[in-house]
Amino acid sequence: MKVFTEKEVMMTYHMSDAIQDIENLFQNMDDVSQTSRVVIPTGEGAKSMLYMPCIHFGKQQGIIKITSITPENPQHNRPTTQANIVITDLKTGEHVASMDGSYLTRLRTGALSGIATKYMSRPDSKTLGMIGTGGMAYEQLLGNLEVRPIEKVLLYNRTSEKAHAFKARIADKHPSIEFEVVSTVTELVRQSDIINCQTQSTSPVFNANDIQSGTHINGIGSYRPEMKEMDNRLFPTASQIVFDDLEGVKEEAGEFIEADKQGLFSFDHHDDDLKGVSLNGKIQRNNEDITIFKCVGAAHFDLAVALGTWEKFNKNHN
Amino acid sequence: MKVFTEKEVMMTYHMSDAIQDIENLFQNMDDVSQTSRVVIPTGEGAKSMLYMPCIHFGKQQGIIKITSITPENPQHNRPTTQANIVITDLKTGEHVASMDGSYLTRLRTGALSGIATKYMSRPDSKTLGMIGTGGMAYEQLLGNLEVRPIEKVLLYNRTSEKAHAFKARIADKHPSIEFEVVSTVTELVRQSDIINCQTQSTSPVFNANDIQSGTHINGIGSYRPEMKEMDNRLFPTASQIVFDDLEGVKEEAGEFIEADKQGLFSFDHHDDDLKGVSLNGKIQRNNEDITIFKCVGAAHFDLAVALGTWEKFNKNHN
Repeated sequence: MKVFTEKEVMMTYHMSDAIQDIENLFQNMDDVSQTSRVVIPTGEGAKSMLYMPCIHFGKQQGIIKITSITPENPQHNRPTTQANIVITDLKTGEHVASMDGSYLTRLRTGALSGIATKYMSRPDSKTLGMIGTGGMAYEQLLGNLEVRPIEKVLLYNRTSEKAHAFKARIADKHPSIEFEVVSTVTELVRQSDIINCQTQSTSPVFNANDIQSGTHINGIGSYRPEMKEMDNRLFPTASQIVFDDLEGVKEEAGEFIEADKQGLFSFDHHDDDLKGVSLNGKIQRNNEDITIFKCVGAAHFDLAVALGTWEKFNKNHN
Repeated sequence: MKVFTEKEVMMTYHMSDAIQDIENLFQNMDDVSQTSRVVIPTGEGAKSMLYMPCIHFGKQQGIIKITSITPENPQHNRPTTQANIVITDLKTGEHVASMDGSYLTRLRTGALSGIATKYMSRPDSKTLGMIGTGGMAYEQLLGNLEVRPIEKVLLYNRTSEKAHAFKARIADKHPSIEFEVVSTVTELVRQSDIINCQTQSTSPVFNANDIQSGTHINGIGSYRPEMKEMDNRLFPTASQIVFDDLEGVKEEAGEFIEADKQGLFSFDHHDDDLKGVSLNGKIQRNNEDITIFKCVGAAHFDLAVALGTWEKFNKNHN
């Protein structure tokens, strides 16, 4: 069994690979089998273990992502979420690789926002507004940069020092982009062509009335029913609402569950999912339309990037 | 993450450890949480992936055993069953160890037979009859040797060359024991104080009428409803029938499922399970009683030996 640390995965596999591999997988979803994820609570609140197995029959390979959620970790300078992925070669039955899954989880989530931005936002989008500059933010930025000619990035965080620290950490890596920390969400929302939300908020991080026409929004934060990141009063106004995984959103995304209950939105009449959008290669949109992508994640996205990493590693070493 | 090959696990962790750790776990089962195992079929017949997670709250550690079943493997000189175990430290959320789980699976299954033999067989049992000399046989032998003063081991296999090869491979490791390959099961059954069955047979490997009074039998073979290893006409005669895991036996052990349907035996009136026997430290038995132990395995047994291996490794290296 070959073992990959997070650093080794980061050196092997990048955002452009992830976007390509996920879009390739969309063309072969009949080859994929997965079960509902298994969750075992291990302590107070959200503390738990998550197990997400997924099989690619065409490639005769399977993975399982094993994730620990440890809510008290940030107090000890450790990440809340830690993932490990095991790859099995189904032809021989051998467990061939074990790789750190934390970067790959952030990367595939950034790639999903990237794919949504690629097909849903205005092609001339130049200003990206990032709400939340925590652990998931950098790969969200990368996903958007990969697909749009972004010139300016506005950064907002509830604790503004964290937004400044994020800017300080990444600005040198992207010298052609202007980064600006803003002190209010309103300021950010009014200037942004694309808004990308990555918070754990339980109340809306923006006001629906502030959203400009022509804006595309990616929401990756709410992954539990009590979380409500996007202002769902915006949903009736949106021309397109696209999910990465309808079943997951129904179970996990608080603002959509609430909106469905309140009649602001109906899961029964939701628009295409990200797979459909990717296969179509476009959506119907006018320049003034507001579009929304909501992402909760699913095992087949992990499958795409884990197998992609493994294949790229083998190609580089043969 | 520390990675252990099968060889490293074999060098660290032995039968006496496994028996002790499983019996210790029986005293702390309230600390253990597990889900039904997840099975994803991956091809023809039994080809599949199995996922068995299990949490030890007291120790704040969790494991998952990932098993591939590849029925065509023996044609290519590869094992049918290959397992990998990942250990997570719940205090930090870190995935601390990945270990080959194939030897540990054989070892814990041998330990379960050992525990059954320790409490259920006549203390003066001297002759062990082994039916089936395949991949699971050696650790089954070790489990019995650990707990009884065995002087003679009779070996039977449907393909007798395999029994001879097994004897040739192991006899030198156990110089004080007499090994004899027999050509019929009847010969074996009539001489044995303990009979240990490890086959994949779909029809009984012995005739109930041949079983001598005072015999204890361990059956570890049948793990699918179509498998029937032990002659279930013996069940009404047995003074005690003990399972490692009642729910598993109800779903998997063909000869018991059939016996329950036919009224030869009832799951509703089954005797104690192995945990109860271990906690009691004995069963009621007379010298002439026939006793039966049936084992199908469960995730908490893997938990016991995986955490035991990890703790022993850390003790040895601190």
